[in-house]
Amino acid sequence: MRQRNKPWADDFLKENSHFVIPNPKTYKNRWNELFGNSNPIHLEIGTGKGQFLAGMAEKHPDVNFIGIELSKSVIVTAAQKLMDTGHENILMINENAENLMDIFAENEVSTIYLNFSDPWPKNRHAKRRLTYHTFLERYKNVLDPKGELIFKTDNRGLFEYSLVSFSEFGLKLVEVNLDLHQLNDPENVMTEYEEKFSAKGQVIYRCRAQFE
Amino acid sequence: MRQRNKPWADDFLKENSHFVIPNPKTYKNRWNELFGNSNPIHLEIGTGKGQFLAGMAEKHPDVNFIGIELSKSVIVTAAQKLMDTGHENILMINENAENLMDIFAENEVSTIYLNFSDPWPKNRHAKRRLTYHTFLERYKNVLDPKGELIFKTDNRGLFEYSLVSFSEFGLKLVEVNLDLHQLNDPENVMTEYEEKFSAKGQVIYRCRAQFE
Ligand SMILES: C[S@@+](CC[C@H](N)C(=O)[O-])C[C@H]1O[C@@H](n2cnc3c(N)ncnc32)[C@H](O)[C@@H]1O
Ligand SMILES: C[S@@+](CC[C@H](N)C(=O)[O-])C[C@H]1O[C@@H](n2cnc3c(N)ncnc32)[C@H](O)[C@@H]1O
Repeated sequence: MRQRNKPWADDFLKENSHFVIPNPKTYKNRWNELFGNSNPIHLEIGTGKGQFLAGMAEKHPDVNFIGIELSKSVIVTAAQKLMDTGHENILMINENAENLMDIFAENEVSTIYLNFSDPWPKNRHAKRRLTYHTFLERYKNVLDPKGELIFKTDNRGLFEYSLVSFSEFGLKLVEVNLDLHQLNDPENVMTEYEEKFSAKGQVIYRCRAQFE
Repeated sequence: MRQRNKPWADDFLKENSHFVIPNPKTYKNRWNELFGNSNPIHLEIGTGKGQFLAGMAEKHPDVNFIGIELSKSVIVTAAQKLMDTGHENILMINENAENLMDIFAENEVSTIYLNFSDPWPKNRHAKRRLTYHTFLERYKNVLDPKGELIFKTDNRGLFEYSLVSFSEFGLKLVEVNLDLHQLNDPENVMTEYEEKFSAKGQVIYRCRAQFE
């Protein structure tokens, strides 16, 4: 998701530090203080422009949502949209998911969503995929043992790879869906990429997995 | 795969007991004696009309193939075709795969193929699916620990179910392919069902898994 550099992004982030949290490491093990309640924390990694979080926060007022997004110019767009919704159960972090274990304590997170993660189709880039075993290790660390990793994508190669990667890591598949939109599940909240690719006739894959 | 009853089937099977082996339990742990060599044994469960075995036996003369097929009228058709090919590395068994552990010794089999197994879409019929855990238990027993279970189907529901069933059982996925024919893999041998459903535009799924 390339966007032009936004020179005003730094100022925007400074002004909105109540929403896009600077120095997120200082909140390790006390994110719920920021939300002001003890609701479960659901984390989306690679939030993009925030459509999924907007829909989920609306549907699930008793869940605290945190979006991690690496790109500054993308997170600024998401933050503008998400602050506009007025939902108080969303926060954002402008960080690389590599640093997850510095940001969250063990078991602090109840659910992790990976939505339409960058596929990195070349084998030599496998370690950049958000379902590579080094990332799974981080998810396992911060995720409640009963929590779920929920992964959606339209990318066949990435989904095939990820099922094998999960299996090698010892994750248990709870559910696999190889044509999510056939379900017409009213609980499904579409992401921007999901809307775009399903409109083009692409099948959407989803799986839910547990570390146990 | 329903076929009309064939009144001559019993006579046919009696005459061709060198090919469709009666009392297969008596060969437990000594199938290789029947083949007259010590090549690895690959087993297809639910052989249908035998097209897969014909192609595989031709491509892999150093493998001994055994087809198990429950239906007498179906196995007769397969046997006629397969005997005509003249390949000496094929045998058949007219049995229910439920009885696998009476027919093969531990580790006697190197690879198990499930091709387009009956989907049994209703939940209350789940235990009839050839990827239900009771069947996996039998496969694990007769399969060499390094051996593979290789499963192909066009049936999305069955494939989704089976990935979860494998995962619950502790099988490790070695490979998942969600559109096998995109590969144009010259090693792939099509079954009758595979030809029929892919001609209709259905996607073909395949996975390979190990019990370790
Ligand atoms: C293909 S976009 C998908 C956006 C959105 N989830 C959707 O489904 O529409 C992937 C997003 O993940 C972000 N991303 C990639 N690697 C990341 C990482 N290691 N940590 C955090 N975000 C990352 C990218 O900046 C990009 O915005
Ligand atoms: C849908 S057909 C597929 C045939 C063939 N494998 C193909 O791909 O064209 C399934 C076959 O499995 C056989 N079958 C079903 N359950 C079985 C069992 N428990 N043991 C042995 N064969 C079985 C059926 O009789 C049928 O011939």
